[in-house]
Amino acid sequence: MNNIIKLLQSHRSIRKFETRDIPKELLIELVRSGQAAATSSHIQAYSIIHVTDKQLRNHLVELTGGQKYVASSSDFLVFCADMKRSLEAAQSTGECVVSGMTEQLLVATVDVSLMAQNIAIAAESEGLGICYIGGIRNNPQAVSELLNLPQHVYPVFGMCIGYPAHDPDIKPRLPVEAVLKENSYSDDAEYVNAFNLTMHQYYQARKGGNKMSNWSQNLAPLFNQKLRAHMQEFLVKKGFEMK
Amino acid sequence: MNNIIKLLQSHRSIRKFETRDIPKELLIELVRSGQAAATSSHIQAYSIIHVTDKQLRNHLVELTGGQKYVASSSDFLVFCADMKRSLEAAQSTGECVVSGMTEQLLVATVDVSLMAQNIAIAAESEGLGICYIGGIRNNPQAVSELLNLPQHVYPVFGMCIGYPAHDPDIKPRLPVEAVLKENSYSDDAEYVNAFNLTMHQYYQARKGGNKMSNWSQNLAPLFNQKLRAHMQEFLVKKGFEMK
Repeated sequence: MNNIIKLLQSHRSIRKFETRDIPKELLIELVRSGQAAATSSHIQAYSIIHVTDKQLRNHLVELTGGQKYVASSSDFLVFCADMKRSLEAAQSTGECVVSGMTEQLLVATVDVSLMAQNIAIAAESEGLGICYIGGIRNNPQAVSELLNLPQHVYPVFGMCIGYPAHDPDIKPRLPVEAVLKENSYSDDAEYVNAFNLTMHQYYQARKGGNKMSNWSQNLAPLFNQKLRAHMQEFLVKKGFEMK
Repeated sequence: MNNIIKLLQSHRSIRKFETRDIPKELLIELVRSGQAAATSSHIQAYSIIHVTDKQLRNHLVELTGGQKYVASSSDFLVFCADMKRSLEAAQSTGECVVSGMTEQLLVATVDVSLMAQNIAIAAESEGLGICYIGGIRNNPQAVSELLNLPQHVYPVFGMCIGYPAHDPDIKPRLPVEAVLKENSYSDDAEYVNAFNLTMHQYYQARKGGNKMSNWSQNLAPLFNQKLRAHMQEFLVKKGFEMK
């Protein structure tokens, strides 16, 4: 196993950070690494809002559901899917039809995710730790107003970055056989059963907070209610018309 | 700049491959590296179909718009956003509401993208080259039938992997100042103008095919028609109801 694969396989989310700042030149190198990721049709459908203002950071703690590390991490980035820049570039060359943005929503969401993951890897290669903040979609309208996000731009997730001040365990993953299938989709319920046992044991033994639970039980809250029920209306309002 | 950042910044899509196979153990290590990426609520909302059957590969060339490397790369992976596994796991613990899947669509699309990008990096760290195939969404219904993708599973993109048989140039990216904004979204039209010149020069000088074009001109076809107009209906049919 080479060093890069070792690094990839040792990821865990970091939620406690030293107060040390990340040098600006390093942050720019991380973003350049992100931009080097593949991008659909070279569209580069993303923007990052680097939130350096303390008041904004504190406000974002509230808006993301009280995750204090959104303010206490060295740096906080809001990753946006951005179709505005490319749409305006295309409009400068001729007439454009903006209708039925489902495909563009996917393109931009994938683009920003590939870019962000490169930033995560680059950061970890420099001894930094990161944590994705999906909670940015708890209140996407308020986040958009706070950061002045225009039409055709939506906040996909945040990322806390900084020098780690704790060393959490690596969380187990599904058996590779559940995820990797050959030529045809195949059922993986047997692996889920085995994984429930793995997670039950992990939760009992892990550093920093034991609990009695397994994978299936933890997922239940994601499905016993309409999840972030505002997202559809919000996206349409932002210009991502789903037709 | 450390070796990992150097690797990230040297990415380019590979479309010509040696006939050499990728050892199965290496492929599994790549997938494990993918699984190590962050995942929203630990949901791991992805499955990979490893297409080893030659006939299926040839069929997929047609379905993705005639991209021959879908058949000629050493390996071809179809990355699927998969909410089926987690939904069934949650259902085994109690009643579930499956309604308004916009948020789940985003969660699964981000999850599979982070995972795939780790696989891309792991592959490149082993001297392999990759190319994402967004064309898998040209005919998602036919792809789903070919690979028996069930409800709540949709093909997001493919990936060709193999040992590179050419050495294409690295494509320029937007200036970092266009992408990285501080505290508030800001207009980036001035950077787009500069980037159009960069791309014009790149297309004239690059190895393997010159053309007269710039970034804005290349984007126009993405916006002068409804892009992959079938996606909305397809996703709803697959159980990703957008309400």
